[in-house]
Amino acid sequence: MILHGYFRSSAAWRVRIALNLKGLTTEPRYHHLRKGEQRSAEYVAINPQGLLPSLVLDDGVVLTQSLAICEYLDETYPEPPLLPADPVLRAKVRAFALAIACDIHPLQNLKVLQALQARGQTADDAQGWAREVIAAGFDALEALVAGSSYPFAFGEQPSLADIFLAPQMANARRFGVALRWPRLAEIDATCARLPAFADAHPDRQPDAE
Amino acid sequence: MILHGYFRSSAAWRVRIALNLKGLTTEPRYHHLRKGEQRSAEYVAINPQGLLPSLVLDDGVVLTQSLAICEYLDETYPEPPLLPADPVLRAKVRAFALAIACDIHPLQNLKVLQALQARGQTADDAQGWAREVIAAGFDALEALVAGSSYPFAFGEQPSLADIFLAPQMANARRFGVALRWPRLAEIDATCARLPAFADAHPDRQPDAE
Repeated sequence: MILHGYFRSSAAWRVRIALNLKGLTTEPRYHHLRKGEQRSAEYVAINPQGLLPSLVLDDGVVLTQSLAICEYLDETYPEPPLLPADPVLRAKVRAFALAIACDIHPLQNLKVLQALQARGQTADDAQGWAREVIAAGFDALEALVAGSSYPFAFGEQPSLADIFLAPQMANARRFGVALRWPRLAEIDATCARLPAFADAHPDRQPDAE
Repeated sequence: MILHGYFRSSAAWRVRIALNLKGLTTEPRYHHLRKGEQRSAEYVAINPQGLLPSLVLDDGVVLTQSLAICEYLDETYPEPPLLPADPVLRAKVRAFALAIACDIHPLQNLKVLQALQARGQTADDAQGWAREVIAAGFDALEALVAGSSYPFAFGEQPSLADIFLAPQMANARRFGVALRWPRLAEIDATCARLPAFADAHPDRQPDAE
């Protein structure tokens, strides 16, 4: 399998964690987001959205969207599971991941911050926007896992919720958000101690700057 | 089950279609988005994100995030399936739904357009932003289903892809996007002829204005 990614892409980072948890290796291809390489004609022919990541299967089929890729990996390589067995718990884990994937990350990613600046906002304004989006999102995420004392967001083992949380916590730090969510911090620290998470960190990728 | 929604919420609309396809009825609760009723203390106690929809199960468990709710419904009420059986096709359907749920809808929803205006953009600027986001997203969606001639996005029966497309097409019309995507238009028209889709339309909801 070939993984099209970029060291700092949160979405590619999620897929790297899932692959590591499953013990799968892929051949990496790097696309520099700040240089806009993901918009090259060559890459858009692979992924019409021009977004990272894409996972190219051995038969050439291209899978896109980090959550869809993670679900595919979980369905085809079931151990260890990335979702609990109970349908209600599965829905809770997916909702937590989606609260990040739909309501936090898209509003604070590079593309949107660049669009805000193209519309006359300063770089500081754009970073302030990102901090507000993340803080409001984290207030809700903390409420979704409050009251439980599992090591991970929804249990004794990491799930899609943890896979989506770790890169978002790193983004929060990068934007200078004052971290005031004790459960999220605890879960993130637990994740960081696992090799599957640590090895997926942007700093450890060959294309890191 | 209780469905917390609003006639014009795209995310609630998706869940209404899924419920209709499954032949399930729910007791509706309405929260007026433009009046900010979804941010009331009472509703935030139900859904910490203060977003619609929420589905409250008969035992009081609250499910949030439209995609997580749809997947829950599909897992607990398997007929008719909202996802194909093949893992690659499931990933394709989910990726299409996520391209809407993560990369189009969050960037053109009311909250973001209000935030843009709070930062000095005019109402026209905000609508222009929404149109650009939708058009770029639809270019990619059209490419994802080009070349196939199924009645629905990924097959002979509606899937999560169609459920997510129909409300987004309506948003495109509402923002005045010039619709230039023949496959998307065709799929949308096919969906509109199904009672499960037609009955879920905002105009047919009791809280429609």
